[in-house]
Amino acid sequence: MIFKSLQANILRDKNMKSFPNTSLRQLAQRITQALGSPEQHAREVADHLVDANLAGHDSHGIVRLPQYARHVADGDIDPIADPLVVRDDGPFVLMEARRSWGQVAARAAVEIAAQRARGDGFACVGLAHAPHIGRVGVYPLRLAEQGLIAQAWCNCSGAARVAPWGGTTGKLATNPIALAFPSRGEPILMDITTSVVAEGKVRIAKNAGKSVPDGWLLDKLGQPTTHPADLYEGGTILPLGGTAFGHKGFALALMADLLAGVLIGSGCGLMPGTRNANGMLLIVIDPDRWGQREEWATRLDEYVNYIRNTPTRPGVDEILLPGEPERRTTQDRIANGIPVDDGTWEQIAELADRLGVDVTDDVTR
Amino acid sequence: MIFKSLQANILRDKNMKSFPNTSLRQLAQRITQALGSPEQHAREVADHLVDANLAGHDSHGIVRLPQYARHVADGDIDPIADPLVVRDDGPFVLMEARRSWGQVAARAAVEIAAQRARGDGFACVGLAHAPHIGRVGVYPLRLAEQGLIAQAWCNCSGAARVAPWGGTTGKLATNPIALAFPSRGEPILMDITTSVVAEGKVRIAKNAGKSVPDGWLLDKLGQPTTHPADLYEGGTILPLGGTAFGHKGFALALMADLLAGVLIGSGCGLMPGTRNANGMLLIVIDPDRWGQREEWATRLDEYVNYIRNTPTRPGVDEILLPGEPERRTTQDRIANGIPVDDGTWEQIAELADRLGVDVTDDVTR
Repeated sequence: MIFKSLQANILRDKNMKSFPNTSLRQLAQRITQALGSPEQHAREVADHLVDANLAGHDSHGIVRLPQYARHVADGDIDPIADPLVVRDDGPFVLMEARRSWGQVAARAAVEIAAQRARGDGFACVGLAHAPHIGRVGVYPLRLAEQGLIAQAWCNCSGAARVAPWGGTTGKLATNPIALAFPSRGEPILMDITTSVVAEGKVRIAKNAGKSVPDGWLLDKLGQPTTHPADLYEGGTILPLGGTAFGHKGFALALMADLLAGVLIGSGCGLMPGTRNANGMLLIVIDPDRWGQREEWATRLDEYVNYIRNTPTRPGVDEILLPGEPERRTTQDRIANGIPVDDGTWEQIAELADRLGVDVTDDVTR
Repeated sequence: MIFKSLQANILRDKNMKSFPNTSLRQLAQRITQALGSPEQHAREVADHLVDANLAGHDSHGIVRLPQYARHVADGDIDPIADPLVVRDDGPFVLMEARRSWGQVAARAAVEIAAQRARGDGFACVGLAHAPHIGRVGVYPLRLAEQGLIAQAWCNCSGAARVAPWGGTTGKLATNPIALAFPSRGEPILMDITTSVVAEGKVRIAKNAGKSVPDGWLLDKLGQPTTHPADLYEGGTILPLGGTAFGHKGFALALMADLLAGVLIGSGCGLMPGTRNANGMLLIVIDPDRWGQREEWATRLDEYVNYIRNTPTRPGVDEILLPGEPERRTTQDRIANGIPVDDGTWEQIAELADRLGVDVTDDVTR
């Protein structure tokens, strides 16, 4: 396997190789183009995946490429499609993804939300029936980079890894919620799943042959387990709050279903008639409608200093704000490469080979 | 002590008495009037507190009366004051509580939010510097009862029981988030603190002389503890997610600070210049702007059936939606009375006595 000789200089683990992000970006783009996408769509998808890897969210990175290729083969993704606005009522906009790439559709939703929020001070944009939109946090982040406060409520149909509180079978997905708040510097970004962990993290552990910590999973009988494979045999991921306070995570996940699935008509979980899709509701507010930017931005600076200036527990160097760990990881991985485990790499190399994409070209650039 | 002979018929615990909710309602109203409130304000406060007890949220019920009396004595609550709209820009409204009762100010914010959301399809109403607003969930609930989707982001200044993730000293409050979604029947209500538990639950345990479960608290050195008193001696409450995933609860709490404190200028935690107050941001959306009510309400009914129809774990009779446990408790306590522990009751009786309010009059009606 030729790529073994091309591994980058950082070897973090005997089952890990590291690659420059630019190489993975080009490889991902070429694979996506080979799947039938025009260059612009392919770049959008590739940048999204590799940016997720850079941020440390490997579960939403290039590990998804083989899955995406299957979705294209199955007809769930139409690689040349664009999303369509199907309802347009001032700040209230509903888009149908029409099997376009999730990242392409979500980017379009972000753009229309920014436009409407700048005009009305507010926007509420739904995206229905999208293929996997990837790392949800990037969408409110893009809006916050334009000075807007943005919430993204996201749900899934066709997947249901989380049981209703007190139940034993999966009915809800790991429905992520992300919220970004602008500042004079980088936005503050909350990006959380409403489950204890994202499904992708369990998948990564399974691919790597590792167990997961106690408190992540229940098996199909509702008993705690540390075997990631149990999830894929009828088990469930615990909602945020775990065994004692999971009713809170269940409530958050259910609200994501109501906003991103029921309200906009995108479907939820394994309900009859649903297909594999993400729904997303963006709720965007222009903070400048609340007063002079200087005023709230100054208050924000003072608040950030107040939070940072907290004594830390032994072993913790400094207080990091939500979104900062991802920025630190991004800086590190830009400098030192993106680690990719052998199992994931083999799947991607195999996919590239099948599509006639030359891996050596990309990873040596 | 005369009230001992008047205890209601349900005795759940040797340290508990139960009272009809109507009796406690009148007692609370008379105490609040004796603190200087006009009848309408007093009824608003009393109904809020006793409704919280009915719902099972005793930490936000009549246990608060002695604390409120201290706030009146200290001048933090002006019992005759009304809130004031200080910014009015279509769907964007900012109110200052001006030391009016928190419940009175929050009710006013709800009313203006409902009015604006019906017109614009959207409202974003901030309430700054409010005395304790009580159980936050009731505010979005009132909006959902009028057919609106409502979020309430709430924060506190003057209190800081939660440490930034990785820190040892309290900087954030237990900042609750509530979201209500209307339906053909009762609204679905999520009402959660962003900490593992609300501070009031620790206070209840302390008053009752009980320990708290592991995973609720850290002591002032950042070590886990089960002694509720440790919280009041420099300890902190863990954010939602606990010792392993508390970064998620920290992010939620911080976002509540940004929306309900920084954005609207209400202050956060123990920052310089803050005083004891709640901030609240209501974000309200008219779901009918998304399509015919029949359409989404039908989808909601189908979704609720889908969630309810889940096999349960041993010991769990049925799946309850968020907000349902509180409605069940309300029905039970309307029928069987509200249990009040002796410690709380003695404080209230002492307060009533000091104010010249005759306890026997109320609890026998």
